[in-house]
Amino acid sequence: MVKAKIYIFMRPEYLNGAADSKKEDLIRNGFAEVKDVTQSKYIELELQSSKSRKSLERRVDEMCKGLLANKVYETYRFEIETR
Amino acid sequence: MVKAKIYIFMRPEYLNGAADSKKEDLIRNGFAEVKDVTQSKYIELELQSSKSRKSLERRVDEMCKGLLANKVYETYRFEIETR
Repeated sequence: MVKAKIYIFMRPEYLNGAADSKKEDLIRNGFAEVKDVTQSKYIELELQSSKSRKSLERRVDEMCKGLLANKVYETYRFEIETR
Repeated sequence: MVKAKIYIFMRPEYLNGAADSKKEDLIRNGFAEVKDVTQSKYIELELQSSKSRKSLERRVDEMCKGLLANKVYETYRFEIETR
């Protein structure tokens, strides 16, 4: 079984309101050590595939494009783990 | 600087509609190798702290409790990276 770990996040040039409000909440609740907060969607896929690493990467890259809710604001990165 | 990597996810006994519909979409779009999909919120915190690992873990654990939108359905795990 192959595991693909996908992180979908706002492009850094756009504001991430969800992350900013979490940062404010944490500081307001006494966690003054919090200097920065980022928030992403984390999607884990279990894949049944015997393809080469290269082909796997190409397939997962295609899947990621389909998983984006908004191609303008969002981007992604992924890691592949073969066991 | 310390990094806390937090994953907030639905408890396994509850249905995760977002993950299930992504799985269906991927399979419908020709990615038949997809066997399972899970989806979490991934929150990364940058912390300025010189506390011991043990105290850091306690602090981040408290923060996580505050970050849950719903304590019944959601749970979390985290990793701490010190550089």
